[in-house]
Amino acid sequence: MEPYILYYWPTIQGRGEFVRLALEEAGVPYRDVARGTKQGMAQLEAALDFAGEPQAAFAPPVLRAGELLIGQTTNILLFLGARHGLAPRSEKGRLWCNQLQLTIADIVAEAHDSHHPISVNSYYEEQKKEARARSRYFRAERIPKFLGYFENVLQANPARGNFAVGAKLTYVDLSLFQLVEGLRYAFPKTMMQLAPQWPRLTALCDMVRERPNIAAYLRSKRRIPFNEDGIFRRYPELEKN
Amino acid sequence: MEPYILYYWPTIQGRGEFVRLALEEAGVPYRDVARGTKQGMAQLEAALDFAGEPQAAFAPPVLRAGELLIGQTTNILLFLGARHGLAPRSEKGRLWCNQLQLTIADIVAEAHDSHHPISVNSYYEEQKKEARARSRYFRAERIPKFLGYFENVLQANPARGNFAVGAKLTYVDLSLFQLVEGLRYAFPKTMMQLAPQWPRLTALCDMVRERPNIAAYLRSKRRIPFNEDGIFRRYPELEKN
Repeated sequence: MEPYILYYWPTIQGRGEFVRLALEEAGVPYRDVARGTKQGMAQLEAALDFAGEPQAAFAPPVLRAGELLIGQTTNILLFLGARHGLAPRSEKGRLWCNQLQLTIADIVAEAHDSHHPISVNSYYEEQKKEARARSRYFRAERIPKFLGYFENVLQANPARGNFAVGAKLTYVDLSLFQLVEGLRYAFPKTMMQLAPQWPRLTALCDMVRERPNIAAYLRSKRRIPFNEDGIFRRYPELEKN
Repeated sequence: MEPYILYYWPTIQGRGEFVRLALEEAGVPYRDVARGTKQGMAQLEAALDFAGEPQAAFAPPVLRAGELLIGQTTNILLFLGARHGLAPRSEKGRLWCNQLQLTIADIVAEAHDSHHPISVNSYYEEQKKEARARSRYFRAERIPKFLGYFENVLQANPARGNFAVGAKLTYVDLSLFQLVEGLRYAFPKTMMQLAPQWPRLTALCDMVRERPNIAAYLRSKRRIPFNEDGIFRRYPELEKN
């Protein structure tokens, strides 16, 4: 099999990280093509351009898999999950995975808007006041509601093993790990304070972190550290009341 | 087949409307269960409650299809598209439909935030000033970028018939119709002014509106009019510069 090609911004985890984690766990070869070369950035831009691609994507991440060019994070994971045993085989299990991943995507978008509530095309500094208002609400109401929901998902799963879906690891578990890690980076005090509300989710994150392929990835240079250009940003003023 | 049960807010189009349009076009029986009865509202709430549902949804819309309980709009459409001939049979075609639907979901979320940029749990009146700033940006940059993208999708489709995907109607076409209708309702002047930029999209909407099942639905009482409790709201002050 020729390696997958991942087109994503080279200096951030961002939405691409949900895809990277699935590729790393599956242990399949891929080229994170925009990292380190100008040529790679040009290839990323070409994946968004109808001049050469009849199915150009609106935005990264985009994955090339042979003749397929696949955009949208949850869509890429739907594809990878089915192909690499990171999702159940049954229709019911697949739909449930996709539903949970879409719910993760919803809170990820809200986490982004906590520092960019007015416009993605303007600097954070230009919308700082509004970001404080939105972050206050995000911390007080949205984080508890979403993570409380995922805790309930884990509790309601009748299978053993503390996975989100069934009795085996799926891409949803990897994404829940990334979500919680990101929120811990952006809002450390809030997450520390609320953590007792979701013991199963905390245990799930510990389990994902220790999986051999994930542990090796997290130690490698392929894992870009969190930073203030990504989705999860640490601005201490956004954690003040 | 027993009728589908749709759980959605009874007084708005909202995200449920994308599901309603697919069910209406497919001509399959369904009960829009929360409309008109308190009992129905209780059933909607039960679909979000892990006390009775091991796969409770985070939020409506939710569709019950026999033993399946399916949440998240794009996930419901993925299911209905495959089951009722509203998506291609090939993996490539299905993934492309899902990708486009996810991109529609992205602009729908941004349309919502144009009037609620700070908090969904607060009134519009409490975030009016921020809503003006976000709407200005949404109208000037985001509507042209997203609808320009969909115009390119139509142009780049090699098949005849001016559909989004392939040579047959899919649920993506129905959703593009709903998106454009909603934006026309919320921002009539903006949409009138920009319309010449997307002739194919305009033609697609005219075509969808005239499909027999859709035309009958739009004339019926089942179609709830746009209003200021939904996602697409007409607040004239949000269209001023």
